[in-house]
Amino acid sequence: MDGIEYLGLAASALATFSFLPQVVRTWRTRSAQDFSLATLLMLMTGTSLWIIYGVWRDALAIWLGNGVTFLLVGAILWVKMRNLLSTRNVTG
Amino acid sequence: MDGIEYLGLAASALATFSFLPQVVRTWRTRSAQDFSLATLLMLMTGTSLWIIYGVWRDALAIWLGNGVTFLLVGAILWVKMRNLLSTRNVTG
Repeated sequence: MDGIEYLGLAASALATFSFLPQVVRTWRTRSAQDFSLATLLMLMTGTSLWIIYGVWRDALAIWLGNGVTFLLVGAILWVKMRNLLSTRNVTG
Repeated sequence: MDGIEYLGLAASALATFSFLPQVVRTWRTRSAQDFSLATLLMLMTGTSLWIIYGVWRDALAIWLGNGVTFLLVGAILWVKMRNLLSTRNVTG
């Protein structure tokens, strides 16, 4: 394997697990106010399409990495939705 | 081009521009408290490695997409750093 491919693998690993400390923080603080709902929905849609693409092309690295990101972003979206619903209850 | 490649392109476009509404929101609210610093640093490092990989492999789609993400995440990190510094000033 080329040396440059190791760089690509390191980039993949960083991208995949970058949301892990975010999920830990968001889950602890129960606050996702600063997150853009549009961004979270685009990330969920984007990773869903990558999962379909990866399964179709039988490319494990693509569907597995995006599967992990999908679950991590999903956890942040869950907190964001709870924030939005509780804000609505308070003001309404 | 295969139909599945269009799906891959759509996934790429969504991933690349997903941080755009986030930057608009963060820039307007000037608040990035809910973001994990580790996540932002990992995203910056990951996209940097992808840019090197893409330039080395002469793969426009890789370095351009990651270049855009690098700039967008950089803008969020900038606000986060300002938040951290101002908090330190208030408490110290």
